Amino acid sequence: MNTNDSDAIRGLITAWADAITARDIDGITGRYTADTVLFDAIPPYKTIGRSAIRQAWIDCLPHFPERFTTDLRDVVVQVSGDVAWSHFLLHFTPIGAEHPCGQTWMRTTVAWRRRSGAWVVEHEHVSLPFNPMTSQTWFIRDPAVVDMPDFTCAGDGPNAQGR
Amino acid sequence: MNTNDSDAIRGLITAWADAITARDIDGITGRYTADTVLFDAIPPYKTIGRSAIRQAWIDCLPHFPERFTTDLRDVVVQVSGDVAWSHFLLHFTPIGAEHPCGQTWMRTTVAWRRRSGAWVVEHEHVSLPFNPMTSQTWFIRDPAVVDMPDFTCAGDGPNAQGR
Repeated sequence: MNTNDSDAIRGLITAWADAITARDIDGITGRYTADTVLFDAIPPYKTIGRSAIRQAWIDCLPHFPERFTTDLRDVVVQVSGDVAWSHFLLHFTPIGAEHPCGQTWMRTTVAWRRRSGAWVVEHEHVSLPFNPMTSQTWFIRDPAVVDMPDFTCAGDGPNAQGR
Repeated sequence: MNTNDSDAIRGLITAWADAITARDIDGITGRYTADTVLFDAIPPYKTIGRSAIRQAWIDCLPHFPERFTTDLRDVVVQVSGDVAWSHFLLHFTPIGAEHPCGQTWMRTTVAWRRRSGAWVVEHEHVSLPFNPMTSQTWFIRDPAVVDMPDFTCAGDGPNAQGR
């Protein structure tokens, strides 16, 4: 039963990625609810509810490459009863012309609940880490390379935020 | 039953925050497992397993203010059976001298599983959003203010990463 639910959620994640590639707004946002709390990679720091998330996608899709694929890796899913969580890495790969969106993978966590028999997304968190010495994002160019800045140079100066 | 589990997880989150304030490394890291996948706010983009997470805390605690409180808000918890997820905002408030760590709240998602009767953290995701026009982090100075950059100035230039 849990294996089936886990497979179902993996299928929903793949379908979501495919919907992004297809610029299919209904497919991208179909699993969000009126209460979903999205912590997106870019501001605002939170977006609440399907219609606000839908508008954010409408606003950002024009900045995507003309053609691209949406790639997933390192997908982990845990399910018990009517609650599940999943995390994975997400990448947009431009086809043809270069585009800055292809520079980094993004860390994604999705928190699920089954309502009336259907899995919905109640929370999603997408991010990149940042270098506390410069406050600049730290791109994940190759997930196989777990690199980091030289924090030993940070000292206790104004950018040493600690965590 | 679920209410009790939800309360238990809220208690674990509060205890974790108190352990940070107390610089109690065992208390901070006691719920992680050998497999926990941490997507932390700062690089590396992932840290896997309790001993690596423990080392990261040992390395970063010296950069915290001498005295501070650890504050939580907007805590949401969902539980079913042996799986749960939670999200909240986290803030370190320096006591006495000013310190840069007090400048922002951080978005935190924690994914739980009950193993041998005890709730453990199998995944944690901490982040700030970033401004895609500058690649700079976007501080959450006041969670009541859901502000954002003026993306309409971004166009399709090199910093318009779309998402």
